[in-house]
Amino acid sequence: MSHLWEDVSLTFSQISMFPFFDIAHYLVSVMSMRGQSGAIALAWNNPFVSWFRAMLYCFGGGILSSLLLGEAPTKFLENSTNVLLASSIWYIVFYCPYDIVYKCYRFLPVQLMATGMREMGRTWKITTGITHASSNYTDAWMVLIAVGWARGAGGSVIINLEQSLRGVIRPESNKLLELSHSAKISLLGAILFTLQHTGDLPVPKHTLMFCFTLFIVVISLIMLLTECGSSPLSPLEAMLSRMLFGSRQQLFPGEPQKKLKSSFSGVKEENSSSASSNVENEIRNKKME
Amino acid sequence: MSHLWEDVSLTFSQISMFPFFDIAHYLVSVMSMRGQSGAIALAWNNPFVSWFRAMLYCFGGGILSSLLLGEAPTKFLENSTNVLLASSIWYIVFYCPYDIVYKCYRFLPVQLMATGMREMGRTWKITTGITHASSNYTDAWMVLIAVGWARGAGGSVIINLEQSLRGVIRPESNKLLELSHSAKISLLGAILFTLQHTGDLPVPKHTLMFCFTLFIVVISLIMLLTECGSSPLSPLEAMLSRMLFGSRQQLFPGEPQKKLKSSFSGVKEENSSSASSNVENEIRNKKME
Amino acid sequence: MSHLWEDVSLTFSQISMFPFFDIAHYLVSVMSMRGQSGAIALAWNNPFVSWFRAMLYCFGGGILSSLLLGEAPTKFLENSTNVLLASSIWYIVFYCPYDIVYKCYRFLPVQLMATGMREMGRTWKITTGITHASSNYTDAWMVLIAVGWARGAGGSVIINLEQSLRGVIRPESNKLLELSHSAKISLLGAILFTLQHTGDLPVPKHTLMFCFTLFIVVISLIMLLTECGSSPLSPLEAMLSRMLFGSRQQLFPGEPQKKLKSSFSGVKEENSSSASSNVENEIRNKKME
Repeated sequence: MSHLWEDVSLTFSQISMFPFFDIAHYLVSVMSMRGQSGAIALAWNNPFVSWFRAMLYCFGGGILSSLLLGEAPTKFLENSTNVLLASSIWYIVFYCPYDIVYKCYRFLPVQLMATGMREMGRTWKITTGITHASSNYTDAWMVLIAVGWARGAGGSVIINLEQSLRGVIRPESNKLLELSHSAKISLLGAILFTLQHTGDLPVPKHTLMFCFTLFIVVISLIMLLTECGSSPLSPLEAMLSRMLFGSRQQLFPGEPQKKLKSSFSGVKEENSSSASSNVENEIRNKKME
Repeated sequence: MSHLWEDVSLTFSQISMFPFFDIAHYLVSVMSMRGQSGAIALAWNNPFVSWFRAMLYCFGGGILSSLLLGEAPTKFLENSTNVLLASSIWYIVFYCPYDIVYKCYRFLPVQLMATGMREMGRTWKITTGITHASSNYTDAWMVLIAVGWARGAGGSVIINLEQSLRGVIRPESNKLLELSHSAKISLLGAILFTLQHTGDLPVPKHTLMFCFTLFIVVISLIMLLTECGSSPLSPLEAMLSRMLFGSRQQLFPGEPQKKLKSSFSGVKEENSSSASSNVENEIRNKKME
Repeated sequence: MSHLWEDVSLTFSQISMFPFFDIAHYLVSVMSMRGQSGAIALAWNNPFVSWFRAMLYCFGGGILSSLLLGEAPTKFLENSTNVLLASSIWYIVFYCPYDIVYKCYRFLPVQLMATGMREMGRTWKITTGITHASSNYTDAWMVLIAVGWARGAGGSVIINLEQSLRGVIRPESNKLLELSHSAKISLLGAILFTLQHTGDLPVPKHTLMFCFTLFIVVISLIMLLTECGSSPLSPLEAMLSRMLFGSRQQLFPGEPQKKLKSSFSGVKEENSSSASSNVENEIRNKKME
């Protein structure tokens, strides 16, 4: 039994990502880009910019981890096969007659399979990032975590940045300040695989890969099926957060945040000419009219 | 005749950019910076910041291509002669008594010559970028195109980024999403010179340099003289765009874009709390008052 | 006497920054982050993001100078002791029961000592940056100034960038365009130490370090005690600015800036659909209602 398990996880860890898992990753990425408001109009008006954004969604992890290591962020272009593959997927998703590809993708089993395969690819990305950083640069564990995390979650981070640059994300919405589910999952993975790499986690790499992949695939499929935005890990997260930071929140559980802030801080709110207060002033002025 | 042509194009390709063509480039760049609203007030209040922005306008191409190759973006500072030259031009453009330099520049022949020389310099920038990338790093053709493009059009790209950071570009205006004329021209040049470099375009380099330079100089002079914002290439561009992406637009040529988008996509507009809709809501609320 | 001075300044220049001066730097940085509006609420809601911002405040100089030299911006993570030190300080500043640390810090002598020690550290940062750049890369004096300046003032620059990305800084406020006091001081230091490095300033390095440190410590303590926002150097600065750029301002000393701009420039204000004018239009429209 133990032998069989060993075999399965070893074989599993040797699966090649190219081409099927890569295709699934590009498909899910481009679809999530298409789901954003304005993406389709953009594709009609500025195909080049739309293509560029699609590349950011597909290769964001590679770009971000290159940036963190001081490498050329254009490194992903060296693998022209993958770039062409991603470009073709972008093309058929946006310009296919009668939207066939999009309609097929809306069919649940297809979506489930693509999402599952993409999450599987995430494990590979994280481990590749850690191996690359440790073999070429340094063994500092913090750098390994950062690079692994960037490789796994890079897409979502870079997209947040890009949206913030374009001004889509408003400061009031605090979107930039929230970690997406995939960013959290990737952080967890990066920590685990770094611990395994430095030898603090006495588990063979392929076993960890198998278990972690199973874990994130199951979680993301559950999230997809139940259509709930919050991850199943959020209770755990809340507990951890309360353990580490929450002593005060327990003292005043009922009070709203605003009060907490003002009663505890005593900070001179010098920067009070910030965005939100401006908006408030505007509303007040209007009412006074 | 063929011999003469060969001689002319060869001599042409050996022209040194320093100092006259560089001066023309700095002059046109600083003038385009001065043409922006607020630039003169900035120069009076924060000379250092104004100088910094002028350097971005003048050396943007070098900075962006360094970033893409993972080099130090401060590399352009190593050539202190050029930096001092650009600084002097910035100084006389903004602080010259009675605005003599600016008034001279408004004289059409001067403007024509400076613009023509600057466009000539663009060819040199693109070829230098491609040679630098291919000799120091990689022969991946996509990287060569990216670096050549960045070197040629870097200024305008970096400035867009900078304006977006300062919030001058509003998300509604979609300025960040449009490629400027110089960016398009540089992209074309980068593709052509990369094809020549990889041997797919059986033309000697100096001939291509001569023809491409002639082409972009003529186009930019026409644009300057007719004072039209759209480039003479836009019909070609539209045709190409229709060939590649346009089948659907032909089906519904009369419909406005908004409808096209909603009728085809069926996408849940989840991010509908975006900037533009906020503005619309505000207007609606005001009307309801 | 001269011998004693030599001894004192030499001993002074050999003081180790770790751990006390580093602690002071982290403490002042985290405190200035805590002073910003919304920082405490952020710490409660998104501890990870708050921690990330604290790291930007503490290691901003290292990150920025790495970026300028084309190195890995994650280099600061290699020194995990310092990262853990900064993290602990972030933790006790934000989550300490009854805000003991914050209340202690509000006690003036503590604040004075921490600020003084931090300013002392700034000299070390600048010289380290210049030495690092010149030994590993280049001796171009402009690069040395840029790197020394980035190392000394990096925190404030990176934070401005970050706030601009989040949209906290509004284009109307022009905050991004102003150099903070520490940025100016660091620029001065970077220029002085670069001159010393290239041999143009015939002073031994340790003497210069001693004098410059004394100078910035005294200035920042004065600023802290008098609670005035403008630095004691601003008259000097204004004089220098008038000498270099100010001939026109002297001609029309009474006129407001807006007029100066329009009467002198004659620039077609093409980008007049900019942020500020939009706001003005809105106000006008409201009045017309």
